[in-house]
Amino acid sequence: MIDDHRWMGAALALGDRGRGRTAPNPNVGCVIVSDGRVVGRGWTQPGGRPHAEAMALAEAGEKARGASVSVTLEPCAHVSPRGPACSDLLQLAGVARVVVALGDPDMRTNGAGIARLRDAGITVEVGVRADEARRAMAGFLARRLLARPQVTLKLALSLDGAMALASGQSVWITGPEARAHAHLERARHEAIVVGRGTFEADAPTLDVRLAGLEARSPRRLLLSRTEADGWTRLAAPADIATLDSVDHVLVEGGPAAAAAFLSADLVDRLLLYRAPILIGGGRTLPDIGLTDLADAHGRWCLIDSRSLGSDRLEVYERVREPAPGERG
Amino acid sequence: MIDDHRWMGAALALGDRGRGRTAPNPNVGCVIVSDGRVVGRGWTQPGGRPHAEAMALAEAGEKARGASVSVTLEPCAHVSPRGPACSDLLQLAGVARVVVALGDPDMRTNGAGIARLRDAGITVEVGVRADEARRAMAGFLARRLLARPQVTLKLALSLDGAMALASGQSVWITGPEARAHAHLERARHEAIVVGRGTFEADAPTLDVRLAGLEARSPRRLLLSRTEADGWTRLAAPADIATLDSVDHVLVEGGPAAAAAFLSADLVDRLLLYRAPILIGGGRTLPDIGLTDLADAHGRWCLIDSRSLGSDRLEVYERVREPAPGERG
Ligand SMILES: NC(=O)c1ccc[n+]([C@@H]2O[C@H](COP(=O)([O-])OP(=O)(O)OC[C@H]3O[C@@H](n4cnc5c(N)ncnc54)[C@H](OP(=O)(O)O)[C@@H]3O)[C@@H](O)[C@H]2O)c1
Ligand SMILES: NC(=O)c1ccc[n+]([C@@H]2O[C@H](COP(=O)([O-])OP(=O)(O)OC[C@H]3O[C@@H](n4cnc5c(N)ncnc54)[C@H](OP(=O)(O)O)[C@@H]3O)[C@@H](O)[C@H]2O)c1
Repeated sequence: MIDDHRWMGAALALGDRGRGRTAPNPNVGCVIVSDGRVVGRGWTQPGGRPHAEAMALAEAGEKARGASVSVTLEPCAHVSPRGPACSDLLQLAGVARVVVALGDPDMRTNGAGIARLRDAGITVEVGVRADEARRAMAGFLARRLLARPQVTLKLALSLDGAMALASGQSVWITGPEARAHAHLERARHEAIVVGRGTFEADAPTLDVRLAGLEARSPRRLLLSRTEADGWTRLAAPADIATLDSVDHVLVEGGPAAAAAFLSADLVDRLLLYRAPILIGGGRTLPDIGLTDLADAHGRWCLIDSRSLGSDRLEVYERVREPAPGERG
Repeated sequence: MIDDHRWMGAALALGDRGRGRTAPNPNVGCVIVSDGRVVGRGWTQPGGRPHAEAMALAEAGEKARGASVSVTLEPCAHVSPRGPACSDLLQLAGVARVVVALGDPDMRTNGAGIARLRDAGITVEVGVRADEARRAMAGFLARRLLARPQVTLKLALSLDGAMALASGQSVWITGPEARAHAHLERARHEAIVVGRGTFEADAPTLDVRLAGLEARSPRRLLLSRTEADGWTRLAAPADIATLDSVDHVLVEGGPAAAAAFLSADLVDRLLLYRAPILIGGGRTLPDIGLTDLADAHGRWCLIDSRSLGSDRLEVYERVREPAPGERG
């Protein structure tokens, strides 16, 4: 049990390498362990193929026989023009045991991958570190369950909730550590959205300004009701559903764009970078359609918080009823 | 050294019992230890006398001879009509060693207490857990160093900084655990301030609604430019300096009253109770006279944070240059 937990941690870390680059496929991670030693490691490659299991099996070779496999998502059961089914590959390689974090909601797999492995006499455990896997593959799951990408809203705030001065003066609220973290988050998303007000105030380049990660700068989208030269335009928040090969969207503000996404209940995750300052009379979040305070409660759950220099990062997750067909 | 730290912790906990009830005297705590065992415990009594050292010495009796004393503030050097000087009492009791957290800035002591003890051949250590002692006796120190009580501003906020709905509808933003904690804080202050808007919207009773602590309900003050029947009125934030026997003031809002105290730079400590909700378009902190964002930085330092039910409490302290004459 402790080992399953530990190896799944390694698989999750591998899967994270693909985050923001594997759409439309999930960013799966996989480790193959034989006699307590890792003999194969794999993660979904950019564009979605090869799959994590195929990569790990290729590394393990003959050592996969009798080995134990930890994989963050149920191995696929469907043969595609781009490759064979991973459940078949695992069986052919002669693995003895497969530990799965999360079932695959894709209609072509959806339990069939696990059934095939069991039919072949392979021991299968399901549900190890399922919550972490759900978070790690939230973009893929949102596509399957909500028919749209996962949306993260990033806000830099003073303690009194100001995102900008009343003057509209463009300013840094948070310090360099928080800004570096925000750039790292950009690299984990296929697309970034800003409102026209922010575009005009800050003319943001919205690239990833971190050494070695420049190539991972995401697509830039402008939320506006009017045309925008040289930019992909979102005419409304709901249009994110139409974006091709985008499973993770980062909304970077400003206040009106944030409110537009929140009003449409299209935010799954909040990244709040909070500076230890009071501004007073600044620009805060405008109306989001709340009429009764009771509706505000029970929607957000703090899942992480940490210090970044003198600022604090808080990560909140939208609490949702399980969608129809969602499995653990 | 480890023992000094530990016994000073016990003295600080004892001193805390008097917080909010010893003005104009500091809420000092004292333990006397002989052969590794506590033989006397004392804390400043309501109204300021007896002093902590006198109470601990009375309990220890003959056991004080050769013992070690930990006391959160320098023992006083002045004889008063209300009692003898504690530095004389300690000498008479024959203690061998005195560990002091903080020097006493009162002009009548101000190092003279420590000098007297040393002159009598008693070993004296100064500075053990000084920061905690400074916080524990912040009201007394503010009186001495800033010529006014310590001011704590309490705010209940949504994640986007709203203190109330735009409608002004009076609502509970935070949950029962946060409210219970706020009541406990009331018992630690001699006076509470609300603005007239809050008085009229919430007609708050501002008592301590916690079993066993009802008797510790503080004085209630109304911030208003016009007279108020049956209430003590503060015509301006700076008037707190004129309050008799009040070393700790809790400002409980609303937004305009909070801004008035912040604009006057009269807030030493922020208690932020944050609910995991977004309101949007709510009433946030109004203008506090900030013209340049650079002035907002470096003023507040997070000194504590904890969960209270689904809410978070954050405590910030105003970072101030040491006032003239302040000693460690
Ligand atoms: N602290 C932070 O995290 C942060 C982040 C970003 C920006 N900021 C600051 O925020 C300020 C700008 O904010 P802002 O509120 O003025 O502007 P904004 O939110 O960046 O953009 C507002 C614009 O977005 C478009 N929009 C909003 N809702 C829409 C909807 N439902 N459908 C289609 N388009 C929609 C509209 O564009 P059209 O008018 O073209 O239709 C609207 O004018 C700047 O001072 C900037 O520095 C702060
Ligand atoms: N979330 C929270 O922590 C919290 C706490 C308390 C209240 N609230 C909410 O806040 C709302 C009320 O807030 P509010 O902003 O309208 O009112 P408020 O801040 O409670 O009171 C404003 C009044 O305070 C007086 N005042 C302000 N500055 C002053 C100064 N410099 N000198 C003298 N008097 C001064 C004035 O009274 P006069 O007009 O009489 O001169 C002013 O009208 C209510 O909805 C309440 O529920 C929230």
